[in-house]
Amino acid sequence: MAIKITGVGSYIPNLIIPNQSFEKKDFYNEDGTRFNAENKIIIEKFKSITGISERRYAENNLNNSDIGAMASKIAISDSSIDQEDIDYIIVAHNYGDISIDSKQSDAVPSIASRIKQKLKIKNPSCVAYDILFGCPGWIEGMIQANAFIKAGIAKKCLVIGTETLSRVVDENDRDSMIFSDGAAAVIIEESENAGGIISHESATYALEEANYIFFGESFKPNDSSKNKYIKMLGRKIYEFALINVPSAMKVCLEKSKVDITSVKKILIHQANEKMDEAIIKRFYKLYGMQMPEDIMPMSINKLGNSSVATVPTLYDLILKGNLGDHRIDPGDVIIFASVGAGMNINAMVYQA
Amino acid sequence: MAIKITGVGSYIPNLIIPNQSFEKKDFYNEDGTRFNAENKIIIEKFKSITGISERRYAENNLNNSDIGAMASKIAISDSSIDQEDIDYIIVAHNYGDISIDSKQSDAVPSIASRIKQKLKIKNPSCVAYDILFGCPGWIEGMIQANAFIKAGIAKKCLVIGTETLSRVVDENDRDSMIFSDGAAAVIIEESENAGGIISHESATYALEEANYIFFGESFKPNDSSKNKYIKMLGRKIYEFALINVPSAMKVCLEKSKVDITSVKKILIHQANEKMDEAIIKRFYKLYGMQMPEDIMPMSINKLGNSSVATVPTLYDLILKGNLGDHRIDPGDVIIFASVGAGMNINAMVYQA
Repeated sequence: MAIKITGVGSYIPNLIIPNQSFEKKDFYNEDGTRFNAENKIIIEKFKSITGISERRYAENNLNNSDIGAMASKIAISDSSIDQEDIDYIIVAHNYGDISIDSKQSDAVPSIASRIKQKLKIKNPSCVAYDILFGCPGWIEGMIQANAFIKAGIAKKCLVIGTETLSRVVDENDRDSMIFSDGAAAVIIEESENAGGIISHESATYALEEANYIFFGESFKPNDSSKNKYIKMLGRKIYEFALINVPSAMKVCLEKSKVDITSVKKILIHQANEKMDEAIIKRFYKLYGMQMPEDIMPMSINKLGNSSVATVPTLYDLILKGNLGDHRIDPGDVIIFASVGAGMNINAMVYQA
Repeated sequence: MAIKITGVGSYIPNLIIPNQSFEKKDFYNEDGTRFNAENKIIIEKFKSITGISERRYAENNLNNSDIGAMASKIAISDSSIDQEDIDYIIVAHNYGDISIDSKQSDAVPSIASRIKQKLKIKNPSCVAYDILFGCPGWIEGMIQANAFIKAGIAKKCLVIGTETLSRVVDENDRDSMIFSDGAAAVIIEESENAGGIISHESATYALEEANYIFFGESFKPNDSSKNKYIKMLGRKIYEFALINVPSAMKVCLEKSKVDITSVKKILIHQANEKMDEAIIKRFYKLYGMQMPEDIMPMSINKLGNSSVATVPTLYDLILKGNLGDHRIDPGDVIIFASVGAGMNINAMVYQA
């Protein structure tokens, strides 16, 4: 029995936010001091490292659960299943619904319950829950769906990654330029075809690393609001990812018994272009190889880092022919991989 | 192979908040009007329905992840396992960490990562994630741990329910008196003994019911803060629970093939004493029986409703001989059951 993705959908928000829109921001260092550079130069450097030239924000009237539901509708339709046959709705996110005029995360009821309601799914046996696992949450949701199907408690699962990071950015922090909004979803189910999920690997590094990505106060000096925003220790994350992601991918690939030369694409979390390249280069180096051309499709240039949504969005874009010449054909082996808050890492070898 | 609880622990916060402490509060109706009754009378009526005479709040310096870690330490020690052998840390909660001086939920990194860090667990293969599933989250975490063990991706899991609802109550809403703080945890693992998890049942009712428990503004008239608090539609929840919980418990018991007369105890989520009694009475009525005496241990009188923590706390109290004459002996069959935000319902038949 194979456990395969039979439908995929994404929602790319309408508001395009180009890098220039940050030119007038007041950026500060963590210690409240100003940068010794003009914003234009800061932005150029930012672009050369992250690869981001623009990103997408959800419109003001849309919440996390709204865009998650929109992506889900497309995935359900794409799979041709009856939505009343879905056994689990698994939603990966980090901050719940945050209204445009609020600083409070709202996940009661869960985002999964809200999406179930928006989809008008009636069947009470369709169990809807949220998973919090940082940016790797969508892949982890896939691993959980896989386990439920193997354990015999599910046949069809809807696994969603949805996030509105634009609602938690500190506009006085350069890192605010990285983050974006987005949603994507898949239907995963038992299939008589070959392939599907072949192997997976997950890890949580908490002892020293738990707070590399955290919720912290604004860099704005004397900010009396005490409001918290998404914050990250970029340098530490870079070093951490470079050491630990390639080895986790290697463990996963070895479990799968698939030869490295059979890997067609690697869909890695869109965190930072330079970092992603360095990870994949080091991964191939573990096999004494050069990184093949076109192995790593990227969407970060136009979409930024939408956390849990980046990996399934990439998959959707490629399958629907919307990411240049990148293609994934039936039988192709790909690797999904992610790293993020927790610090969590995971990888999955998957045959389309 | 049985999948059994081998260790249990709870943390009951130190601050005792008696009903009298609400006597000076300004309670309003949803529409901002005042009640036509004195607080003393409101509190008396509240106590007669819910059974709550006092509740516990975590001390100001403690967060959700702190009390979750304290309960976990006891559970790990109780199980005698090496904590480095834990494959999954699954944390059920609803509002993350909320500092005493903040209105913002903080779950980045996840509460599971924070607890893993506080426990000083090194092993990166111990995967730590949070599940959001309303008050039934702890039982659902147990169901997920069970599936992971059955699917062969885990052998030992730490499943925690932890919540600080005192940080999200609207002091102008009578329902604020219901909620409390607490944490409890278990180690669940493969065992050569008989029994363990025999059957389970879960459901999510979202179409009409998703917002029966929600995050809403204060009842205080002209509150300009727009801050949101835990809110519930008590009457609707009561009717919903009375219809749907007994039938879910019956489905679960039928799956287990255990005879109703063999059920020794029912550990139900401590939401409201009158409601819980009505649920269990109706459950037995489905079998043409009267509710047996002493079947339903209650802690709500002294501990209030601590959401995800109530069911494992009850289990811990009974096992350690801290809940009157209630006992659970090896071989005894019990039912865990819960209902809450989502609206979610679940039940589990378990043999000690």
